[in-house]
Amino acid sequence: MIGIVGGMGPRAGLDLAHKVMELTPAQHDHEHLPTVLASLPRRIPDRAPYLRGETSVNPAEAIADILGQLDHMGVTVAAIPCVTAHSAPIMTRVHERIREDGLRLKLLSFVEETIAYIQRSYPAASCIGSLSTTATIAFGVLTKPLVSAGFTAVVCDSEMQSRFVNETIYDHTYGLKADADPVTDRAREQLQQAVRQLSAKGADAIILGCTELPLALPEAEFEGVPLIDPTHAVALALIHHATRGDALLEARVDAQLAAHP
Amino acid sequence: MIGIVGGMGPRAGLDLAHKVMELTPAQHDHEHLPTVLASLPRRIPDRAPYLRGETSVNPAEAIADILGQLDHMGVTVAAIPCVTAHSAPIMTRVHERIREDGLRLKLLSFVEETIAYIQRSYPAASCIGSLSTTATIAFGVLTKPLVSAGFTAVVCDSEMQSRFVNETIYDHTYGLKADADPVTDRAREQLQQAVRQLSAKGADAIILGCTELPLALPEAEFEGVPLIDPTHAVALALIHHATRGDALLEARVDAQLAAHP
Repeated sequence: MIGIVGGMGPRAGLDLAHKVMELTPAQHDHEHLPTVLASLPRRIPDRAPYLRGETSVNPAEAIADILGQLDHMGVTVAAIPCVTAHSAPIMTRVHERIREDGLRLKLLSFVEETIAYIQRSYPAASCIGSLSTTATIAFGVLTKPLVSAGFTAVVCDSEMQSRFVNETIYDHTYGLKADADPVTDRAREQLQQAVRQLSAKGADAIILGCTELPLALPEAEFEGVPLIDPTHAVALALIHHATRGDALLEARVDAQLAAHP
Repeated sequence: MIGIVGGMGPRAGLDLAHKVMELTPAQHDHEHLPTVLASLPRRIPDRAPYLRGETSVNPAEAIADILGQLDHMGVTVAAIPCVTAHSAPIMTRVHERIREDGLRLKLLSFVEETIAYIQRSYPAASCIGSLSTTATIAFGVLTKPLVSAGFTAVVCDSEMQSRFVNETIYDHTYGLKADADPVTDRAREQLQQAVRQLSAKGADAIILGCTELPLALPEAEFEGVPLIDPTHAVALALIHHATRGDALLEARVDAQLAAHP
């Protein structure tokens, strides 16, 4: 059974549940994978203010409480659709709580699954750009593991990052968290500028490193540069884990992964 | 907290979660309503074979077990996105179990909320058509309550019902439960024929009375006849219930309902 700790933001959780369903090679209702989406935005404090030191309430506690409820319902593999929540101060505590509370579920990482997906799908890529919140960049959530995996990591200049990326995610009038259905033209155009800057810096592929970004940039590539959607990578990994032991689906999933990594 | 017993089929559950989010007048992540979607297709036996007497396993038991888990997580208002599950042999037992198990959540009915929505939005309508599975029609799931509410109820002729409606929902190659993303042309065209027949029989509005149908007929009206999406009606009702007591959202929801019922 798949578990999704949603609500960070709410659309990102739904997007992961949708991609799990879309990418599952099911032919009948009963072949779709059991999935519980817990979208509880008010229970989980905002990640960025905690990382900036503006509050001492670590969102890891609420995330771990929800993982506990999912574990209790029978969830065996889970994911947290929020890249900022994968920063060390939050994710280290989540994993501590998983151990302390004796949870049996396996928690997949958006960062590790995204890097594994790039290695499988773009074996020639060496320089990877990241678009993400300023908090994610400050904590090296994507860049540190990319460098450890042997990639060169590039991010936007600070002016572009603060005005064209972070603001596009958070702005209360045109931003993705406020108004992503449909995404505003302004949001999309500003992010395209940021993609062009990363491309000019030599990125062979660009990670849409905030789960809201694929809502604004849904295309597989932009001006020749592949855009990597971590939610797609994690959906494939969740399906892979959730189908182990189910001979019929397992064979279909393996064939699908071999054909379209 | 909103609970959704999904998996019947899986896309219908996701569709309800998506509509709840889309219709919530939220301006920030934290204003979105806490929602748990439990999409567990394998745990719930298919509804139609039980209603046809081909198995004695009432899907009500699995549905009630899942409602119990949602209640335990703190869900206060829930819905079951499957019109066929609202037939008396299933829904009566679900309500018995809710009482026996002492659940505190309120379960909204797709049938009652859809009829209330038609009364609010189309006060002049007197004859209502229903498109649904043959099992739903045989048990009068929609037609009996429509007649009790003072409407004339019309359904398709049996040939049209069996070949163009039921088969379009269930067929393993082109049907909605197998292949709804995107919906096949054949599925959409056959359902349009059925809509035309109900319109010719005098329907002032047509209920898309199987939660898969709005995936194939997403438009608000077809050839001048309003198409009623029960999932839209239930999403509005869930939002209404879940925001009582939250002064800010309550006022916005009331204004929204007054402006666009």
